[in-house]
Amino acid sequence: MNVKYVIAIIRPDALPALETKLGKLHVQGMTVTKVKGFGEYTDFYSKNHLTEHLKVEIFVEESKVEVLTNAIFDVAHSDIPGAGILAVLPVDVLFHIRTRSES
Amino acid sequence: MNVKYVIAIIRPDALPALETKLGKLHVQGMTVTKVKGFGEYTDFYSKNHLTEHLKVEIFVEESKVEVLTNAIFDVAHSDIPGAGILAVLPVDVLFHIRTRSES
Amino acid sequence: MNVKYVIAIIRPDALPALETKLGKLHVQGMTVTKVKGFGEYTDFYSKNHLTEHLKVEIFVEESKVEVLTNAIFDVAHSDIPGAGILAVLPVDVLFHIRTRSES
Repeated sequence: MNVKYVIAIIRPDALPALETKLGKLHVQGMTVTKVKGFGEYTDFYSKNHLTEHLKVEIFVEESKVEVLTNAIFDVAHSDIPGAGILAVLPVDVLFHIRTRSES
Repeated sequence: MNVKYVIAIIRPDALPALETKLGKLHVQGMTVTKVKGFGEYTDFYSKNHLTEHLKVEIFVEESKVEVLTNAIFDVAHSDIPGAGILAVLPVDVLFHIRTRSES
Repeated sequence: MNVKYVIAIIRPDALPALETKLGKLHVQGMTVTKVKGFGEYTDFYSKNHLTEHLKVEIFVEESKVEVLTNAIFDVAHSDIPGAGILAVLPVDVLFHIRTRSES
């Protein structure tokens, strides 16, 4: 099965809605990390220009990437700069450690 | 030298054994991040369905990927869901910042 | 536009200079995570062999990778082991969530 690695940097308040969406899409796993960063339109002269965001990482089969991407857009979208980014990266192979089997 | 990027999401208690293994395999670096997440068989109705795991990242030469993968399986394996996942991703190039040289 | 994913593991004290550099290079975003890890020449017998580093992640157009890489070398370089690593990974696609558009 061909797998992709989806990375999304989102605002923290978008997480609960994303989790609900992922449950409905039967996405079988997600990793969340607290990160700091800056994006477009950053005021580097501001003392706290590094804002808090969440980094969400999901390994997902290729056939589900578009549905997942749209789900993330739906919950994380905002007209304010700082809504974040979403990237899709190639994966050679993904294993489940419990079964030592490829997903 | 062709390099791969290995990402493993493991239970925190598997870290000490993994470090010992990596030392024996002469793996020359590892990055550890505290993450939260969910995996298979998650009960989304549970209040604390996001469990604590560690994300381990290792850049390793391609010839060592299989040995490293098996080492991670050995130390992180468990019959309980939540043992985690392991992914291998392609890398264009890896540099050591100290020497500015490719690894 | 072809995008690359740059991961750098650097010493925490190199961050302010890196931010200044990125602003000058018009790099439009950066994510920073506190990580622990070990690199070359680690003394595994030391109690605190896992040192604190920062993981910096930047999605950047391919044409800027070399300039960015050299900027990171300039600010994070050190003759002491522990200066860190820098990797460039392929990306299938990068979206801005605000506009749902590819970068």
